[in-house]
Amino acid sequence: MKRIYMDNQSNTKLDERVFESMKPFFIDYYGNPQSIYSFGSFSKDALEAARRQVADLINAFAEEIIFTSCGTESNNLAVKGIADALKAGGRHIIISSIEHFSVLSSVKRLEKEGFEVSFISVDSNGNVDESELKKAMRRDTILVSVQYANPEIGTIQDIKKLVSAVKESDNAGKFVAFHTDAVSACGTIPVDVKDLGVDALTFSASVMYGPKGAAALYLKKGIRISPQIEGGVQENYRRSGTENLLAIVGFGKACEIAKDEIVKNSKTVQKLRDRLIAELPKRIEHIYLNGARENRLPGNVNFSIEFVEGEALFLLLDARGIMAASGSACASKNLKLSHILDAIGVDVAVGQGSILFTLSKFNTEEEINYVLEEFPNIVKKLRDMSPLYSHFLKTGSRKAAGPGTDFDEHSGIEK
Amino acid sequence: MKRIYMDNQSNTKLDERVFESMKPFFIDYYGNPQSIYSFGSFSKDALEAARRQVADLINAFAEEIIFTSCGTESNNLAVKGIADALKAGGRHIIISSIEHFSVLSSVKRLEKEGFEVSFISVDSNGNVDESELKKAMRRDTILVSVQYANPEIGTIQDIKKLVSAVKESDNAGKFVAFHTDAVSACGTIPVDVKDLGVDALTFSASVMYGPKGAAALYLKKGIRISPQIEGGVQENYRRSGTENLLAIVGFGKACEIAKDEIVKNSKTVQKLRDRLIAELPKRIEHIYLNGARENRLPGNVNFSIEFVEGEALFLLLDARGIMAASGSACASKNLKLSHILDAIGVDVAVGQGSILFTLSKFNTEEEINYVLEEFPNIVKKLRDMSPLYSHFLKTGSRKAAGPGTDFDEHSGIEK
Repeated sequence: MKRIYMDNQSNTKLDERVFESMKPFFIDYYGNPQSIYSFGSFSKDALEAARRQVADLINAFAEEIIFTSCGTESNNLAVKGIADALKAGGRHIIISSIEHFSVLSSVKRLEKEGFEVSFISVDSNGNVDESELKKAMRRDTILVSVQYANPEIGTIQDIKKLVSAVKESDNAGKFVAFHTDAVSACGTIPVDVKDLGVDALTFSASVMYGPKGAAALYLKKGIRISPQIEGGVQENYRRSGTENLLAIVGFGKACEIAKDEIVKNSKTVQKLRDRLIAELPKRIEHIYLNGARENRLPGNVNFSIEFVEGEALFLLLDARGIMAASGSACASKNLKLSHILDAIGVDVAVGQGSILFTLSKFNTEEEINYVLEEFPNIVKKLRDMSPLYSHFLKTGSRKAAGPGTDFDEHSGIEK
Repeated sequence: MKRIYMDNQSNTKLDERVFESMKPFFIDYYGNPQSIYSFGSFSKDALEAARRQVADLINAFAEEIIFTSCGTESNNLAVKGIADALKAGGRHIIISSIEHFSVLSSVKRLEKEGFEVSFISVDSNGNVDESELKKAMRRDTILVSVQYANPEIGTIQDIKKLVSAVKESDNAGKFVAFHTDAVSACGTIPVDVKDLGVDALTFSASVMYGPKGAAALYLKKGIRISPQIEGGVQENYRRSGTENLLAIVGFGKACEIAKDEIVKNSKTVQKLRDRLIAELPKRIEHIYLNGARENRLPGNVNFSIEFVEGEALFLLLDARGIMAASGSACASKNLKLSHILDAIGVDVAVGQGSILFTLSKFNTEEEINYVLEEFPNIVKKLRDMSPLYSHFLKTGSRKAAGPGTDFDEHSGIEK
């Protein structure tokens, strides 16, 4: 059977060259990087070489890279760790309303510990409002966290502008740290921390053709952070635990490859994306693109399709060998409307039928053709079974009986 | 050059069979276990199969296993997570004085947040005093954490007895959770959580011939815990972040192998250990075994050697291809006397010359012979250069001039 993988915001396939780079560390080189003997030094050298590769991708210094186990951990470390380190200066935090759950949950935890959190809304394209951010700034604000690019709707923020807004705010206290979750951006589009002016930035190997088990938090020199996993000397006391050298070496190689090929790959992937975005609405009625047209992640295609249920869409796509997603991978058990679609004002009924294709450099023109062939048939099949759709066809009314609501067959009027 | 690896408390070499089990997950099966499509289900099945293997090793239920990235993370999660979840019942915690730094640092962090910590001392063999533990129990005690086996001196605690002492204490509040850090024990000696009666137990793949990047916290059904890395549905909301499936699959296989071979391997390794313990004192004078003779980890050999410096010992051993350690791997940059040796009452001057060999199933009789051949020569070489030793030979006095102290050459008397 065909296997067309278009869920790359959730996980990417490992690049063969990354795999090659990891090979020596599977079995042969298992020395602990912290050990004094030369076998350990070999591991230490590999660790530090990977750190330089990872730093290079975002134009950081090697010592500004803290290795962690995953993007979620990096976000937890950034938000909780910086908040704790800076709390003497205040307890107010600002985040956007479309952050990843790892940022959301971290600030929810901080709220329980006496921090106050302001949530900045986004427009219908998912862009954070700069003036609202400025207005939210207070004397006791210590941390702002805004996602670089949203994995679900693909919108890329103008982080540089937002950083300036924060740093130049009259209401800012002595120092306000700016963190950005760049998991979906790094490796996909060029990211330069010095140009952006951010203080902390999260990125991960697992969505840039690298292995699972390695991610990073960039932390600008001089910025303080309280470790969340502690007890050892690793990562300069900021993240303890024996290093996952195998994964880190792969992460380094993935960053090196990304740096070399980012422009070429993003062009190729964007072309595939643009075909889907242009062609699907020609073949399917009542289909709405979510997220911005411009400044959109090269591989991101997110449509809401009226009169179908998202879950059924997945299953039929899966049956045809097409793997897609809805919302964040971390919350994929959750079938209610995602907080992202909610934040950009998608109607609940329409949003139920949302589908997310995230393309990678491994996707091909043929695969896009196949999706363009199959997907409209699947939508048709589902709509043919849909009482909502037949009601709409009969009456022209979208406000039809959904599951669990009453519908008066005789009057044709919704109660 | 020879490479004799005897630093297995720090990292073990991957078992080839573990590597084989991981192979399909390097490149081919990269589906996210949380995704609904069938490619994700395959990953989910592999994840849950590994969870059963891991649970089986310690006689737990699969749903009692929380996967983490390393033993240090598991210990942080156990101590901070349980303390936070149970803090309504009190804020008193008891740990032994020979815990791993990840437990020590976690309770230090909790002290800053208003928790009180009692440290239970150990005897000269490293055994926790049961009566002292009982005495330390208070109405507001909510958590006790005692290491199953110490990686540095090899002492295995009678955890079952200590659990009973805690659970039956008159001074106990409603519920006191018992956690044990069993990183050095699991995979090396049989561990049965139901028999022990513990509520939480830490163990890790990286020291049982498994990969880095996967560890676990056993958490008994019904015991509450506050997640430390949050924001996703993974591990039943108790540890978020995309699962490191590759490492977890390897961890599962490592546990399966350990379960089958634990008795055979521990006998073989113990025989090697006992030869070193018996033979080295015959070949080297003024050498003292640290830790218990009985109830000692099968691979643990820890000697303090008078009139030599630990760092010099390492370097010369390394030059002869022998990789050993001193103290915990996580603190190996730290050359002062470890808190473990301090806790069992080792003299500072003598403890400076400590050396830790931790053997694995991959070590051989020939390697032991080589160490028995080389090590006494190395010690002799170092002592020949030692002013302390020549002073001792001349005067019989151990209280000689150490680095940084004054020594009156003329009178021969220490100031």
